[in-house]
Amino acid sequence: MNIVDIIIKKRNNNEFTKEEIEYFINGYVDGSIEEYQASSLLMAIYFNGMTDDELFNFTNAMINSGDTIDLSQIEGIKVDKHSTGGVGDKTTLVVGPILASLGIKFAKMSGRGLGHTGGTLDKLESIPGYKTSIPFEKFIEIVNDINISIIGQSKDLVPADKKLYALRDVTGTVESIPLIAASIMSKKLAVGTDIISLDVKLGNGAFMNNIDDARKLASLMINIAKKSGRSAFATITNMDEPLGEAIGNSLEVIEAINTLNGKGPKDFTELCIDLAGEIIYEAKMAQSIDLGKDLAKAQIKNGKALESLKNCVKAQGGDIRYIDDPSLFKLAKKRLEVKANRSGYVEAIDTKGLGILSSRLGAGREKITDKINHSTGILSKAKVGDMINVGDVLAIVYSDFADTSKIIEEVKSSYKIGDNKKSLKLIYDVIR
Amino acid sequence: MNIVDIIIKKRNNNEFTKEEIEYFINGYVDGSIEEYQASSLLMAIYFNGMTDDELFNFTNAMINSGDTIDLSQIEGIKVDKHSTGGVGDKTTLVVGPILASLGIKFAKMSGRGLGHTGGTLDKLESIPGYKTSIPFEKFIEIVNDINISIIGQSKDLVPADKKLYALRDVTGTVESIPLIAASIMSKKLAVGTDIISLDVKLGNGAFMNNIDDARKLASLMINIAKKSGRSAFATITNMDEPLGEAIGNSLEVIEAINTLNGKGPKDFTELCIDLAGEIIYEAKMAQSIDLGKDLAKAQIKNGKALESLKNCVKAQGGDIRYIDDPSLFKLAKKRLEVKANRSGYVEAIDTKGLGILSSRLGAGREKITDKINHSTGILSKAKVGDMINVGDVLAIVYSDFADTSKIIEEVKSSYKIGDNKKSLKLIYDVIR
Repeated sequence: MNIVDIIIKKRNNNEFTKEEIEYFINGYVDGSIEEYQASSLLMAIYFNGMTDDELFNFTNAMINSGDTIDLSQIEGIKVDKHSTGGVGDKTTLVVGPILASLGIKFAKMSGRGLGHTGGTLDKLESIPGYKTSIPFEKFIEIVNDINISIIGQSKDLVPADKKLYALRDVTGTVESIPLIAASIMSKKLAVGTDIISLDVKLGNGAFMNNIDDARKLASLMINIAKKSGRSAFATITNMDEPLGEAIGNSLEVIEAINTLNGKGPKDFTELCIDLAGEIIYEAKMAQSIDLGKDLAKAQIKNGKALESLKNCVKAQGGDIRYIDDPSLFKLAKKRLEVKANRSGYVEAIDTKGLGILSSRLGAGREKITDKINHSTGILSKAKVGDMINVGDVLAIVYSDFADTSKIIEEVKSSYKIGDNKKSLKLIYDVIR
Repeated sequence: MNIVDIIIKKRNNNEFTKEEIEYFINGYVDGSIEEYQASSLLMAIYFNGMTDDELFNFTNAMINSGDTIDLSQIEGIKVDKHSTGGVGDKTTLVVGPILASLGIKFAKMSGRGLGHTGGTLDKLESIPGYKTSIPFEKFIEIVNDINISIIGQSKDLVPADKKLYALRDVTGTVESIPLIAASIMSKKLAVGTDIISLDVKLGNGAFMNNIDDARKLASLMINIAKKSGRSAFATITNMDEPLGEAIGNSLEVIEAINTLNGKGPKDFTELCIDLAGEIIYEAKMAQSIDLGKDLAKAQIKNGKALESLKNCVKAQGGDIRYIDDPSLFKLAKKRLEVKANRSGYVEAIDTKGLGILSSRLGAGREKITDKINHSTGILSKAKVGDMINVGDVLAIVYSDFADTSKIIEEVKSSYKIGDNKKSLKLIYDVIR
């Protein structure tokens, strides 16, 4: 086998054998295939795509490039959830505890924020003492004990994805739907969970901007899972405005706690209930999705979901006083109100823009090695469709900068106010 | 400007500005743009092509990456010819002398053989003493004096092409028609000739395998020349069998001398007369192409074309006794006849296969650093359409190997003999 022939084969839109895909992935990971050959092949895949068989083999070759995580020592139904990334997406912090409070095992390995999106690990580290890196045996023990643990991904999980993603990022090949599907599913399937919930974000704050692409991505991911004998379903959800209000680490944890106290923003609460309800149904703990959602609501109302979050924080060394009293969270001293200078309806929100602005406030990263500030961020108060009067607060900026005036202006211009009342759907589709 | 944005722009099929193309070419040559980014962009160009303006700007940016060759000190009409590469193509050695004998300036910079194709420089070095590397002033002096000089390309000519071609070769992006056009024309236009004749080879021994691609390549190259204010035309010619009989360096020089003596193979003679006639007409030294061809024939008949070759060889230090008496050329001692083992018509010849076999006999190179053997090669005696009886000689192999039996078998199987009489066109089209 020869990598140039393999590149040309895909370029000419022919189907790879399993062996050819393994030759490529293994050769790329061990360095015998050059970066410039891999990038050329990735661009050919961007154009010609992959068949279902190719994508399955590609994902498996990626999984086999590193360690897999055996969760067989955890008893019961093990659930994972994944979001393709959005702004203000703190869903894991609410859905996980709801599921755990019902006895569903939430053994979750999360990532860090990059670009305009935040990461669950960064958010959790807003809680003093919370350790995202603990020995694997301890992780298993915690999940068996209290049904939930949220830790960082093993460094040795899917090294092919790390290398391929870094290359795609600098060669214009990120936006390939099969490559996105392989990247996500390799990491999901490398961990031995039973049910995988995929939250495909759609809108100007997400990587997917049209419903066809989102549906395509969802279908490809579900296909890979099915071919692997695993259960997965995908929910396509709105990202044309931030989810809830809070963007930024401490702010988002506070909002998650509020939500578990039954006092969360309407859209965010609804999405958490919906995703939890779907998973509860998939886990056969409810006879219908609606009954699953009712169970989820009940676990919030009776305080058991919040209790699960507290258990999780405690088990991983975090200070649970912060969960009981979120006012303890250290937030940036400067809280600057961004006010509307015209009246009308909020017609659109530049969601990705707000994510980037929050990142620039220190809440996120441009490079994975950047340090972050857990106390800064944005509370986005206005929602698309809201009626706004001059002087109404659109957002509150939490800043540690001496001069935040430029960012304030940019936050203001992220809200488009006009004469048309628009409304956004929260959930576009569920694909099984 | 940012290379990732530039890659994505082409990937999304948008048109580059001149500045973006210069940013890419200059950055790639100076190393600030990585090989893996260049290869990804080249693959995107493979899929989405380039507009006429892009291709013109791309070619010019390549030209500007290095030195250009000023031929203004040469008086008269300066002509260049280029072949896209085939098997047995020694046309330059006949067409150049015909033109020179008529006072047309043939200031030619040639290349070396690689893969299944030979190179004019290698062929000329079969003549003892012939120097392909001489000072530029001397080159100009020779052309002014005797109208012809054939030397090696300057190392500093179009460095962008050298770097890009090496990358394309290992990333499956050779077969992009606009990239082929830019590669050829950058090298042609970097030299200050007035008329450029482009011989686009078509067939199983050429890089182009279908007439549409060949026409497309021809048109793109002519467009670039026209936008540069230069005169160019293209001839699409047959490469479904070797041109003439000789494949290999000394063998080909002998065949060129025979042709200039009026005793060359029919197809090769006809092509040389045709190309020379076209150029003579373009140079306004004949009122029609047919009259140009008549002039070319006359220069062979009256011995003046051969005289020009002798002048050229002499001026560059070569031993002209070899031109007067080609039997002086050292040829491999083993001359092995390849005989047909069935009767019928020659239906097809694996031309590229014969080129590679000749190369394996030592006449060519796999890598540009390989040494070659000038005395080996193949005389391909049978032509497509010939009636063959069992035992007829299909080819003669000139070998210095102890055991040539495997190559002999492969040469034999390069000739497909069957019941159908086929005939090949020599010239498919002329495009202006």
